[in-house]
Amino acid sequence: MASIKDVAQKAGVGVGTVSRVLNNSGYVSDETREKIEEAMKNLQYTPNELARNLYHKKSGIIAVLVPTVEIPFFAELVHNIEAELYNEGFKIMLCNTDKAHNAELEYLDMLNRHIVDGVITGVHSLDVEEYKKIKKPIVAFDRYLGEDIPVVAVDHKEGGRLAAEILLKNGCKKIVHFRGSTAVESPYHERHFEFARIMKEQGVECFDYELAWNKFDLEYYKYAVKDLFDRLDEWEFDGIFGTDLVAIECMNEVIRRHKKVPKDVKCVAYDGTYITQIVEPSVTSIVQPIKELAKEAARLICELVNGKTYKNEKVTLGVSVRKGRTTME
Amino acid sequence: MASIKDVAQKAGVGVGTVSRVLNNSGYVSDETREKIEEAMKNLQYTPNELARNLYHKKSGIIAVLVPTVEIPFFAELVHNIEAELYNEGFKIMLCNTDKAHNAELEYLDMLNRHIVDGVITGVHSLDVEEYKKIKKPIVAFDRYLGEDIPVVAVDHKEGGRLAAEILLKNGCKKIVHFRGSTAVESPYHERHFEFARIMKEQGVECFDYELAWNKFDLEYYKYAVKDLFDRLDEWEFDGIFGTDLVAIECMNEVIRRHKKVPKDVKCVAYDGTYITQIVEPSVTSIVQPIKELAKEAARLICELVNGKTYKNEKVTLGVSVRKGRTTME
Repeated sequence: MASIKDVAQKAGVGVGTVSRVLNNSGYVSDETREKIEEAMKNLQYTPNELARNLYHKKSGIIAVLVPTVEIPFFAELVHNIEAELYNEGFKIMLCNTDKAHNAELEYLDMLNRHIVDGVITGVHSLDVEEYKKIKKPIVAFDRYLGEDIPVVAVDHKEGGRLAAEILLKNGCKKIVHFRGSTAVESPYHERHFEFARIMKEQGVECFDYELAWNKFDLEYYKYAVKDLFDRLDEWEFDGIFGTDLVAIECMNEVIRRHKKVPKDVKCVAYDGTYITQIVEPSVTSIVQPIKELAKEAARLICELVNGKTYKNEKVTLGVSVRKGRTTME
Repeated sequence: MASIKDVAQKAGVGVGTVSRVLNNSGYVSDETREKIEEAMKNLQYTPNELARNLYHKKSGIIAVLVPTVEIPFFAELVHNIEAELYNEGFKIMLCNTDKAHNAELEYLDMLNRHIVDGVITGVHSLDVEEYKKIKKPIVAFDRYLGEDIPVVAVDHKEGGRLAAEILLKNGCKKIVHFRGSTAVESPYHERHFEFARIMKEQGVECFDYELAWNKFDLEYYKYAVKDLFDRLDEWEFDGIFGTDLVAIECMNEVIRRHKKVPKDVKCVAYDGTYITQIVEPSVTSIVQPIKELAKEAARLICELVNGKTYKNEKVTLGVSVRKGRTTME
């Protein structure tokens, strides 16, 4: 493997000059920079990012907190965050917070102890007050944690509006609406507010089912759908709106009860991960651009680690519709 | 939060004695140990594992290498490994090796640089020779990496046999058999050998489709199934055997081509993750006990980190059958 010395020799400069280019510090002329970059390319030189980070008094580790990677949404998010940060010279420490212990606090404490350089948190278990106390690089995913902590989220209001429009266009009159837990302050509620607002305006009846906080496994969703049908009693519905897994489970129960999708019941899923495309019929979805969300979260945490600060920063990305076969229009 | 001092005070002993209990070093009488454990319980004392690890000249970090957590099998494995190791005072560094860079080597190098204490690897990209050079704690998941590196895997031969038996009992005569890439030496090939052996013995025709190495995404599986149908030409099949996602994609294509499952075509999936239960019909599966596999991998890496050594250690767990609605018998 090529070393920094080999690069310097090939480019005809000193090791210090190569180091300045690598660390982006001090003056290097454009011409010299190009020569060095050319030499690196030719020699397939990969800088030892961890050694560089050590030199900069950084651990080179970002903690990523999600409820669980068993949920496809978080799996895809973590996968992409890891890839983005890897390119920036960071490794990730992964924590699934659905365990019994309150691991969230422990990871925040690691920030203070310089074990990790930053935290990207997509979880909803701690009081916001705990976060406000910490003056370290933190990026929040889909959650408000105070004015110093940038937030990355999609335009959930637009997502709620798009879902409502599709179900209205399909002539739905009675809709089951699975809602996230209201126990936490999150941008994601906006999709529920907007969806409910439009439906009320249009005189469409909705049965709201609030899902439990921090429960994401198939077992729980099976339970929730069973519980829903018990509660509905004789109330028959012709539309479903919920996140991927619960929407799919509800749709499957409808099919098991000998109704036809989309003829009798339409379904729109929120998130649009790959599981909406492996079921038959494939589910019409409001798609979150997970790769881009990961990119933004990675970009923000790198900037914070490099000393940038933010006030009330919110990065909002758009959602899109992917037509499946659970709706007709 | 209670400190080690609070525990010592409550138990009526010195801090050094509590430390000896925590670190399991030096003599402490059973009576005193009980008093200390009682005090810890009462005060809800959680030892600072990272500080303890530092004292023991360990980083407290285990690297976990998988192709990608986007695959439900690896998501569940990583989730459970993380939970198990968390209980043992370790954090995990996650690496998805399906990226362009050869990250596997970089993580192995971190072992030598004491950035991580151990590596659990479930990936298949490096030469075995690279592993043989490293005399550090490594546990292999479903792969042979040399006599010093313990292997955790299920009894794949038994898995192959069970799958074959189900399809035979269902009267299948022409079967599509998706095989893992033969580019690596892995225990998982045993299921293919056994499946093929039994089918040949029983005079059942198999069409073997070898999947590409290190490709696991839905896009690839969609391509593979399309490619399969092109290659089959007029050859009609009545049975499918493959890992969850490719088996599901193949089944869906069969349904889209207006055949009935299980009437015309039977399907058996290997792994049996939750996605086999969210599709209709639910897929009959050979189930790997992922939670137990994670537990064993975590146990072995902890033992290696604590100085234990192994020669030709292989931990083999059993598989089970979960009957779905893609087979009749």
